[in-house]
Amino acid sequence: MKNLDKIFYPRSIAVVGATENKFKWGSFILTNVLDGGFQGSVYPVTRSSATVYGRNACASVRDLPQPVDLVFITTPAVTVLEVLRDCASRNIKDVVMITSGFSEAGDEGRVLEKAVVDYADGNGINIVGPNTMGIVNTANRLYATGTLVRPMKGGISIIAQSGNVGSQIMEWAERQNVGIGKFIGSGNEGVIRCEDYLEYLDRDKDTSVILVYIEGLDDGRRFMEICRQTTLRKPVIVLKAGRTLAGSQAAASHTGAMAGSYRTYESALRQSGVIVAQNPTDLLYLSSAFDSLPLPRGNRVGVITLGGGWGVITADECEERGLVLPPLPPDVYRKLDSMLPPFWSRGNPVDLVGQPDRKLYLEATYAMAASEAFDAVIILGIVGSAKFALRIHETVMRMGYASREDLVELEKLFAGLQANFLDIIIDLMEKYRKPIYPVSVVPWPDDKMVYAKEGKRYKVVIHKTPEEAVFCLERQFEYSSYLKKRSS
Amino acid sequence: MKNLDKIFYPRSIAVVGATENKFKWGSFILTNVLDGGFQGSVYPVTRSSATVYGRNACASVRDLPQPVDLVFITTPAVTVLEVLRDCASRNIKDVVMITSGFSEAGDEGRVLEKAVVDYADGNGINIVGPNTMGIVNTANRLYATGTLVRPMKGGISIIAQSGNVGSQIMEWAERQNVGIGKFIGSGNEGVIRCEDYLEYLDRDKDTSVILVYIEGLDDGRRFMEICRQTTLRKPVIVLKAGRTLAGSQAAASHTGAMAGSYRTYESALRQSGVIVAQNPTDLLYLSSAFDSLPLPRGNRVGVITLGGGWGVITADECEERGLVLPPLPPDVYRKLDSMLPPFWSRGNPVDLVGQPDRKLYLEATYAMAASEAFDAVIILGIVGSAKFALRIHETVMRMGYASREDLVELEKLFAGLQANFLDIIIDLMEKYRKPIYPVSVVPWPDDKMVYAKEGKRYKVVIHKTPEEAVFCLERQFEYSSYLKKRSS
Repeated sequence: MKNLDKIFYPRSIAVVGATENKFKWGSFILTNVLDGGFQGSVYPVTRSSATVYGRNACASVRDLPQPVDLVFITTPAVTVLEVLRDCASRNIKDVVMITSGFSEAGDEGRVLEKAVVDYADGNGINIVGPNTMGIVNTANRLYATGTLVRPMKGGISIIAQSGNVGSQIMEWAERQNVGIGKFIGSGNEGVIRCEDYLEYLDRDKDTSVILVYIEGLDDGRRFMEICRQTTLRKPVIVLKAGRTLAGSQAAASHTGAMAGSYRTYESALRQSGVIVAQNPTDLLYLSSAFDSLPLPRGNRVGVITLGGGWGVITADECEERGLVLPPLPPDVYRKLDSMLPPFWSRGNPVDLVGQPDRKLYLEATYAMAASEAFDAVIILGIVGSAKFALRIHETVMRMGYASREDLVELEKLFAGLQANFLDIIIDLMEKYRKPIYPVSVVPWPDDKMVYAKEGKRYKVVIHKTPEEAVFCLERQFEYSSYLKKRSS
Repeated sequence: MKNLDKIFYPRSIAVVGATENKFKWGSFILTNVLDGGFQGSVYPVTRSSATVYGRNACASVRDLPQPVDLVFITTPAVTVLEVLRDCASRNIKDVVMITSGFSEAGDEGRVLEKAVVDYADGNGINIVGPNTMGIVNTANRLYATGTLVRPMKGGISIIAQSGNVGSQIMEWAERQNVGIGKFIGSGNEGVIRCEDYLEYLDRDKDTSVILVYIEGLDDGRRFMEICRQTTLRKPVIVLKAGRTLAGSQAAASHTGAMAGSYRTYESALRQSGVIVAQNPTDLLYLSSAFDSLPLPRGNRVGVITLGGGWGVITADECEERGLVLPPLPPDVYRKLDSMLPPFWSRGNPVDLVGQPDRKLYLEATYAMAASEAFDAVIILGIVGSAKFALRIHETVMRMGYASREDLVELEKLFAGLQANFLDIIIDLMEKYRKPIYPVSVVPWPDDKMVYAKEGKRYKVVIHKTPEEAVFCLERQFEYSSYLKKRSS
């Protein structure tokens, strides 16, 4: 197993190719590291100027005042062998090679990459890349990618064979309060391969869920073996791109990856307990679910809805995905029957017929969460629905029949009630160890997907549509069933 | 065919049950109509107070100073027969019955609904509902629903058998600049049925695309017949909920609709040229695509991407949905070969290898749009990508090496360049009559999905993910093929 500790936990860093030209990689990495809160030493390396962003620059790695733990290389492909020799001369064994123009760029690059890999292997040098968009470790605020995206700290770690797909996922994570542990743009994987990162993250105590975007694998067998081990400890979610002929041809020209038959891949992944995703959106939703929620013990879903139509749509989605909506057990039925109007739905989904009545939806939530009849609960339209009430108030205010002060009060009231409801959902998940999925249906654009409460094991994931929630629940159930089978 | 003109184009309105209690339906409808910009006369009707929101109230419809074109009823179910008699006495023939507690609420309600329907039929009264969330006609700014959502004017009209699903779609439309024509919450369809609205919208010159959310149909055969006629003139997009046993049981308790076999439905819908959706998100994406973009003549897609991974994902999605990525024709190849670095992808997708170089992506866009080899073009990551550049500038600014003034300038510059690119896309769509789908991939939350330019037939729809764009393109191709088959 490769030891990647110095890559993720360096005490000191050098950036070769450092520059104040802000639209170059030597500036991206340097500014991201400096501005991102990394606490170790950071050395710009360049021959072009004496200082970079106010820091004294060294002309080469040989001139560094101390041998650093990790070197980022951003200079052109023709220079990297010399930089590697400089690293070796200072006993530096860990490198992130941003530089492109290797095997992804044709025959000449392929020859150069082989020389780089041979040199690294011969001198015991670990290389991330080449042609990588960089790495992140939120634990020490080491943000070292080209896109300057800085998601918050959390348990989801990402291995991406594509820089732009990786950036996309991290940008979403940042925007939605989805916590990230480590990120690796694995690039051409000349020295350290996808499987090595996976093996490392398997052991990483800061990582609770692993996301992998792959276009091709050099050693598919080893990857599957590691997956089979890792999935016993933490969920592994994989998006394999290049599934089709068109896709694999595109992948071949992109990372040079040779795609195998996707059916073979997919069946091997599933047999290894991997959760298979189709696209980056899936990756984001699935990782949030697996990182935040308890696993369901079975496939029986209780649905509470503020409106009938959403209940119908959710029931369809559940059944189409192999989840079932059992009838309400007698105790839940009696409880709800005593509270709801006489024409209530008398079944699952429980339709609150448009009444955002707090006592009602709280009691329904308590009853459904506590019931042994359900392995998971989906709640449609309670979270977010206060926004309609605010809209009503705003209208009446514009007409001159309500005050801005009242609106501010109402906003505070609703925000407090919603936060309280989310806290209750967390408490219920902690108590009953079953996932509860609130779906906001009409979210405001600035809403975050993940809501966390200090000191709690579980977090709330707020979905915008029933189909997203049901999709995640199905995959949670699949993984839960896999674990049950493996342990028996 | 039912004449619904007075429902959508009333010169005068009365709201029965008008109240200043802002969380009651009598206030929702009245404030929405008054604050929404409706230019006709509006009369509150109530016995409880002499004025409502500053307007003199009438005690009953009989007391109105003039017979209005349209009456909204929000009073309890037991009162509606009397109100209908009042309407008849003033020769008022058009009613929107918000009131619930009818067939959706059990046997007693069913009896009452029958009485209402019989009275309406006997007296030639048109009723929207009962149990409707209201109607909208943007042409005359008649916003008369309970949720106070006010999407902008446009060509998409909606018939929804569920109020909350309808609200959800309209709220999204409002947020994403998706233009709406008419909206009908059809409720229990006691008198006017889904098919009647469809027939009316078929003839409506303000409607270019029709969305339908249905849980059940009383006369499926007539619905299909109307669809078959309408789809020759404009796209009809249908979400049929209650596809599964669980879903149809939920639907039965919701609208009382008896669901038929979904397979029968789906095949009849497809044979009638209907575009079939699975969930409300589909409805929104599909309606924007059909309302904004030219139809593709075939299934050959050209892809331009800022990053390799997105290209791979898009190629997979295309092939999995029956679309093809033909090789680049010689003229396009030569053009791009003269501009791109020697290691470019030399194929379709055209990978701009991370260079957001304006000349490059413009030339690629011109060449792909003009080429006879492609029926549609997908462009990944150009729109939206400037945001990464702004992020870079912000970082350097925080470090003290760039100014806020420069940032403001840069923001203006990028916004201008992006708007210009979107204008170019519109021009190219007008010129070549083929859809061009930009995908922003990393959108900001406040981004709008639809970009329009005054005086142009087509609009740009900006998707957030490749899979959304490919999904819409597939359905456009399906409809285009259907029309070709029908016309031959």
